[in-house]
Amino acid sequence: MIFKKNIGLYTDHYELTMAQGYFLSGLQNKIASFDYFFRKNPFKGGYVVFAGLSDLIDLIDDFKFDDEDCNYLENIGFDKNFIYYLKDFKFSGDLFSVREGEIVFPNESIIRVEGNIIETQLIESLLLNIINFQSLIATKAARMRLVAGERQLVDFGLRRAQGFGSIHASRAAMIGGFNSTSNVYSACRYGFESTGTMAHSWIQTYNDEIDAFREFVRFYPTSSILLVDTFDTIKKGIPNAIKIAKELEELGGKLQGIRLDSGDLAFLSKTARKMLDEEGLEYVKIVVSNQLDEHLIRSLLQQNAPIDAFGVGTSLVIGKDEGALDGVYKLAQIGDRPTMKISENISKMTLPGKKKIYRYVDSTTNTFLLDGIELTGFKPDKIYKIQGVNKEYITRNLKSEEIVTKVMERGKRLIPNLSVHDIASFSQLRLKQVTEETKRFENPHTYVVGIGNELKKLQDKLKEEI
Amino acid sequence: MIFKKNIGLYTDHYELTMAQGYFLSGLQNKIASFDYFFRKNPFKGGYVVFAGLSDLIDLIDDFKFDDEDCNYLENIGFDKNFIYYLKDFKFSGDLFSVREGEIVFPNESIIRVEGNIIETQLIESLLLNIINFQSLIATKAARMRLVAGERQLVDFGLRRAQGFGSIHASRAAMIGGFNSTSNVYSACRYGFESTGTMAHSWIQTYNDEIDAFREFVRFYPTSSILLVDTFDTIKKGIPNAIKIAKELEELGGKLQGIRLDSGDLAFLSKTARKMLDEEGLEYVKIVVSNQLDEHLIRSLLQQNAPIDAFGVGTSLVIGKDEGALDGVYKLAQIGDRPTMKISENISKMTLPGKKKIYRYVDSTTNTFLLDGIELTGFKPDKIYKIQGVNKEYITRNLKSEEIVTKVMERGKRLIPNLSVHDIASFSQLRLKQVTEETKRFENPHTYVVGIGNELKKLQDKLKEEI
Repeated sequence: MIFKKNIGLYTDHYELTMAQGYFLSGLQNKIASFDYFFRKNPFKGGYVVFAGLSDLIDLIDDFKFDDEDCNYLENIGFDKNFIYYLKDFKFSGDLFSVREGEIVFPNESIIRVEGNIIETQLIESLLLNIINFQSLIATKAARMRLVAGERQLVDFGLRRAQGFGSIHASRAAMIGGFNSTSNVYSACRYGFESTGTMAHSWIQTYNDEIDAFREFVRFYPTSSILLVDTFDTIKKGIPNAIKIAKELEELGGKLQGIRLDSGDLAFLSKTARKMLDEEGLEYVKIVVSNQLDEHLIRSLLQQNAPIDAFGVGTSLVIGKDEGALDGVYKLAQIGDRPTMKISENISKMTLPGKKKIYRYVDSTTNTFLLDGIELTGFKPDKIYKIQGVNKEYITRNLKSEEIVTKVMERGKRLIPNLSVHDIASFSQLRLKQVTEETKRFENPHTYVVGIGNELKKLQDKLKEEI
Repeated sequence: MIFKKNIGLYTDHYELTMAQGYFLSGLQNKIASFDYFFRKNPFKGGYVVFAGLSDLIDLIDDFKFDDEDCNYLENIGFDKNFIYYLKDFKFSGDLFSVREGEIVFPNESIIRVEGNIIETQLIESLLLNIINFQSLIATKAARMRLVAGERQLVDFGLRRAQGFGSIHASRAAMIGGFNSTSNVYSACRYGFESTGTMAHSWIQTYNDEIDAFREFVRFYPTSSILLVDTFDTIKKGIPNAIKIAKELEELGGKLQGIRLDSGDLAFLSKTARKMLDEEGLEYVKIVVSNQLDEHLIRSLLQQNAPIDAFGVGTSLVIGKDEGALDGVYKLAQIGDRPTMKISENISKMTLPGKKKIYRYVDSTTNTFLLDGIELTGFKPDKIYKIQGVNKEYITRNLKSEEIVTKVMERGKRLIPNLSVHDIASFSQLRLKQVTEETKRFENPHTYVVGIGNELKKLQDKLKEEI
């Protein structure tokens, strides 16, 4: 078995080195506050769908060290007293977070982790690994949902996913708005639907394409989607599928659809639709696949391709062409002292102190106007842009929501374990509150994220001191 | 716990639908032969480092269905008799493969799976998922090794990896030539070295950078690598590191290195080297990180940046800018009947029959000349190019190797479970046999892969028939 119950070793080596350092320094009860945030929207887009929170909470619960782990750490030179400490280690801090499925923007403190310096440090790599990836894929999926309208979107990505990344990729795809997945493992694990059609190998197993079709529908008389491109789509595949559909009708069955997996999908889907309709088979659906992404889906629909369902693989599950969300985890406060990092790149500067996020909403249209980050305990009446040109926004009279809440307390989950469907529904509702300008693919409007009066004062003070 | 021992559900829904179809047809003992191959080299490169085989063999052993899996399948509508068959399912076929770490090229039948149609079909998704990803990452790592020469390469990618894809990403990075990883889970699981430096949070935890450095080296007097860019690299970070190095010398310790994580790494590494050397600290190593890839590493070294070690994250573990190897798994023979698929795109045509690969090697220089795919039982004396212009190569008098061997027999592993280090060494040796022209980044020479006389005859015959 490649995976184990305790995943304390699922961390970067330096987390353990530093944790041991804190332990040997006697700092193990020092309280720290870390922020998770990302710097840049992926896919040249205007937003991110935040995903992975529920898995993160579950995995933090598994973040422990068993005897085997401890022996290993001893063998590679860690201190015996520190290892003794790890034997009983369990994350006992607090997590504050926006809701899973929420729409978030660069530089926002989306998750805040408070606890002793060792536990908050040790879970860094896990948190980044889980949240960066699922948020990337949920965002990619949401872009496809945006252009696909009410049509079916099916995740076909297992074979091209990055190893076991597939498990969370399929979950995140559902959060972003997909209808189902081919990945049975994920579907079972997370309780959503798995679906599929047939492979070329099924056709090739039989002497003739029509025999292969006939045999398949015998077992699946109402749910067959026949793959029609093995030899010749128009001359052979579709005519054979039509024959089978008629045979099925006589037997009381109903062909569900056909799948096109190569060639010009616009031309072929139009031709297929026409051929099917001429035979009174208006009910037979057209499913397409083959290196699709949000741009190709949009293009096919702009060409009025009569497609009912899109099977999307590679581009979805690897988050092409981005591959990673650049989320980071930075120390914002240690004990009572807020802290920030300057670094050689101004874009890598961090925000000090314990913070929360206010989201300002248009009271008429209900759309999101801007977000303001402020120190906890304060409500800003002005928001200052973080980077770029100095600009202020008066927020005093705007309707606002606080979007960060406590989700773990002393190591225990506080929020319900929502179904993926519920998270997805919430996400779609929130996406409706994002303006079209922010959602568009080409040069989207940059949603304003600023900081409140108190945070600005603190930032200026610390910059001064450094 | 998110993972389980039995991973039979780690498959695409349609594999189960088809398997059930075969079962209900009474075809469960029909023998099939499938090929794994990819169509395009990733990264605009000229080759692929084949990786993932040993994991695949282990995972095939875990590819079983427990009661929970069976109940799930029953709930979603699978047939009771088929589920009863799955309860006892275990892959019992044969696997033929090139060695892990071997250099391979497009269209080659790298893995051949022979067994009954159900077992060969069910493992498709798993095989593709594992092999596509690890081969992608091993190839990316090999490109970095090529430009890094003898310098240290360290995988820092866990935080940006695609979820649990990280586990195999780190393994594949080692196969491609990396020295160590930050990923402790993978290092423990696969027996290679994990290493690390320190995070900005360590520095920020203390009131002053030099206090943070001093405290760290107290615990790690010979293995500390100090991160010097938290506030100001040249004015503060490096001078502080120098002070600490001198203090350490007096205490009998030795500073191992400094790490630069932002700014102009060429300029900063040169400045740092000069500052360190002027203080007699020639032994202190310079480690750099920050969005590196093979092109940036090459550029830094072309500028004579005095860098001893590169920490590479995102670009390595997600295989940027490719993200996926396009490997596929296609039926080549069913019973005694060779089969092929034509499809709407000529590039998607497959090669029929059971095949092996001959690699022709220059008897003087030992470099690879060309590869020939031929039906088993035949040795070609001519090789025909697969696609593009017709061209023949006379191979009669060339030195050749057969690079595909049997690695699983009746479901049992036949090959030893090699260490990742051994696989990596083999891979580096084989890479030396690839010409510089094929290895270069810009428009690499296309290595010739052709088919032998008998395979060509069979292909022509089947094309004719279809």
